This record gives sequence, C-alpha cells and structure tokens, in this order.
Amino acid sequence: MAQLDESIELKVLAFDIFGTVVDWHGGIRAEVERMLPGVDGSAFALAWRAGYKPAMRAVMDRLAAGEGGFTLVDELHLHILDEVLREFSLDDKLDRDGRRELNTAWHRLPAWPDAVEGLTRLKSKYTICTLSNGNIGLLTEMAKRAGLPWDCVLSAEVFKAYKPDPRVYLGAAGVFAVSPGQVLLVAAHQDDLTAARGCGLRTAYIERPFENGADRPKDVSPDPANTFHARDILALAEQLGC
Amino acid sequence: MAQLDESIELKVLAFDIFGTVVDWHGGIRAEVERMLPGVDGSAFALAWRAGYKPAMRAVMDRLAAGEGGFTLVDELHLHILDEVLREFSLDDKLDRDGRRELNTAWHRLPAWPDAVEGLTRLKSKYTICTLSNGNIGLLTEMAKRAGLPWDCVLSAEVFKAYKPDPRVYLGAAGVFAVSPGQVLLVAAHQDDLTAARGCGLRTAYIERPFENGADRPKDVSPDPANTFHARDILALAEQLGC
Repeated sequence: MAQLDESIELKVLAFDIFGTVVDWHGGIRAEVERMLPGVDGSAFALAWRAGYKPAMRAVMDRLAAGEGGFTLVDELHLHILDEVLREFSLDDKLDRDGRRELNTAWHRLPAWPDAVEGLTRLKSKYTICTLSNGNIGLLTEMAKRAGLPWDCVLSAEVFKAYKPDPRVYLGAAGVFAVSPGQVLLVAAHQDDLTAARGCGLRTAYIERPFENGADRPKDVSPDPANTFHARDILALAEQLGC
Repeated sequence: MAQLDESIELKVLAFDIFGTVVDWHGGIRAEVERMLPGVDGSAFALAWRAGYKPAMRAVMDRLAAGEGGFTLVDELHLHILDEVLREFSLDDKLDRDGRRELNTAWHRLPAWPDAVEGLTRLKSKYTICTLSNGNIGLLTEMAKRAGLPWDCVLSAEVFKAYKPDPRVYLGAAGVFAVSPGQVLLVAAHQDDLTAARGCGLRTAYIERPFENGADRPKDVSPDPANTFHARDILALAEQLGC
C-alpha cells in the first residue's frame, strides 16, 4: 500500500457508482428477466454494460473533433439497449415505452449490502459525493431509492466529460476548492483509480469480486499504487477511523 | 392563488437558498461582528448582499460578449467583500486569510427554524434540490453543516448561467427529464418566481418577512400568479400533503 501522506488532510471522498456502490449486474439481470421472461438476464446485462465504454469514447471523440454535444448516459444506455435487443433477436419483444422503462433500471440498481452503513459512517468525517459517468438525474433517483446519503451528486454531466478524462477528477477537486490530494477516489476498477492518481488524487480500491455475476468472479488483488484497499465500504470506513 | 393543474404531476421541488432556506442576514451579521468587533454587522451584510446581483449581471454581460468565463459565487463574494471593506474604511482590518475566512461565512449560514423539518417532510414525496446561484461547494458545505437533506445539489455552476437566466430553470427540468410544469420553484423572491413561471415552472412563494433583518420587515403579500403561497417551508409541506 502506498504511504498515506498525513501532511495533506483528506477532505472529500468521491465514489465511482456502477459496481462500486451498486450492483449493476444483479439489478439489470433481475429487471431484464422480469420484462423479458425466458431471456438470459445475466448475458443481457453483460452485453449492455459492454457497450458503455465504447459509447462514451465515441462521444468524446466527436467532441474532440468539434462535432456533436455531450450526451447523458441515460441516452447512451437507451441506444445500447436498442443494439443489444437486436443482437439477442428481441427487437419485436419491447416497444418504445418498454425500452424506456427497462432503461431506467439503471436508476433502480440495488446498493451493495455494506454501502448505506459504510457511507453514513464516512459522511460523519468527510464530504462524500458521487463521481460517476452516470447523469445527475439517474444518480439522484438511485440515491433516493437506495437511501445513499450523498452530500452532493457530482457527475460527468457537470464537467461535460466522462472519466477517465482528467477534467472529471480535477473538476471534483475544483468544486470543493481543495487540492487533488485532498480527494480520495473510491472505486472497484483499477483503470479509474489509475487515471485519478495521474491527476494527483488519492485512491481506494473496493473489492467487488462478483460485480460481473456470481459465476464470473473477477481478480480483486491489491495494486500497491492505491492508498487504500478494502473489502467493502464498511472496511474502508474502519481504515479511515469512521 | 393560481389553480394547480392536477393533470401534471409535480415531481421536483427546486429551492432558492439565500433568504428562502437560510438566513443570510443573521448569519453574515454575526460573523462580521465576530471578526470585526465594533462594526455594524447588519449594515455590512446588507451592503455585501447588495453587490451580488450587479456582480452576476456583469459576468453574464461579459459571457454574452464572448469575454471571460463563468465565475463561481465564492469568487464574486470575495470581490464584493473587498469593495465593502473599502466602503466601510476597514481595508486595513482584515488580511487576505481573514477575508477568505469571512467569505466562507456564506457556507455557514444558519437554516431558518422550519427548514430542516419542512424539507424532510417534502423529501418523502418529491425530489428536493437546491436551485441557487451559489456554487456547488458552497451549497454542499452549507447543507452538511445545517443538516439540509437535499436529494441533489443543483447550482448555476452546472448550467454556467445565473438565475434569472432561463437556462437555469429549464436546466433543472432537463436534469430530471421532466417537463417544466413538473418542477416547483420555491423562493422568497417574486422576481425569481416570475422568471421561473416564464419558463413554465410552477412557483411557491415563502414569506421571509425578516430576510433583511428584524428592523427591516419586507412586503410578503401574495402574488396570485404563484401556485402556492406559504408562511414557511413547513406550511408548504402541509399544503402539498406531506
């Protein structure tokens, strides 16, 4: 584990959301199986999620080329859903309203069991916020349903760029008028954490071995570059003395 | 009172903050008198607040002319503070650090006594958010200290425009993917409410007769154009069945 420089006081904990705080695989799988009986909800969820990064990259490429505007993740999700339904030969199984309803399954994802208590403890000592590519409306509805006690909902939408663009990580420090080293990015994904460290943030890895489903355990081994490595958000609260 | 069109379901309550939810006059007065003993804290607070609208207008004029960027209210407040200290012949009484400390008095404003309970009740039925010209960091620190239970902190900072610019009111509806008529702007200022109605939002006026100090009662008579008129936020919760 990297040494925590105690001379820089930690102020803000910024959380990745999908996979880190909420269970996207379990939530999407359940809603797919409810709305499309007989379909393999797990495979569908994995395909939907797989379309996410390429869709964001395409938006950022268009923005960099001066074409098109920033796009909310709700809209990207709906576009990917159309593609996945075609891929699964389900195009005739869901009309426009049904697609819109299924699309908001991302607003209704269940929190991991440790999340609400862990965040509540961390909130007693730090400012806790989302730092997700999800749009503000999505994150707000999710928090309200799941009881996630954010001090503030920050999103790519505020900065008009998606993670891992530096504008998002540095933007979070700017919003709270603190130095990047006073922000801890908390995430279950090493690539997100690596990009945050590149901007001077401190980082905490959260193990979510079953993020991709119970039968697809992922590698959750520690990267010594992170400031913290914790089994879950409660364990992180413990490490931070909350 | 305007008739509430029951066919449009209200979803989001967006709150003006300074004066509506928190007592800027009382809070600034107390901090000025603490940091600058002997100074008339009430007159100082009124002068500081008086600089606010012209400062925002100047930023918007420069933006419209393609000059300069959007400016956070923390920075505007600091600039106005410099002017007010000169005006009060107190230039030598506060150094740079002292000015920065006094400037964050806006982050520490006390909530009106009805605010926390009123918002908590309204939150049970609606999405409640800030819709203030204050910046996100300011509003987040204020909420954390005062216990204001926002679902989401929205700010002019998100839309890169200050109220009464239509982008702010319409932006709030856009964030939550609802029609303007599904958003209720709650404010103690008729000009803010008038601008919101111009964008199709519904409006609630909150009486804050002593917003400008106990010895400067303001006119709080109803404007029939508003959808609701309430003594305070608890009374609004009552009217909305919360």
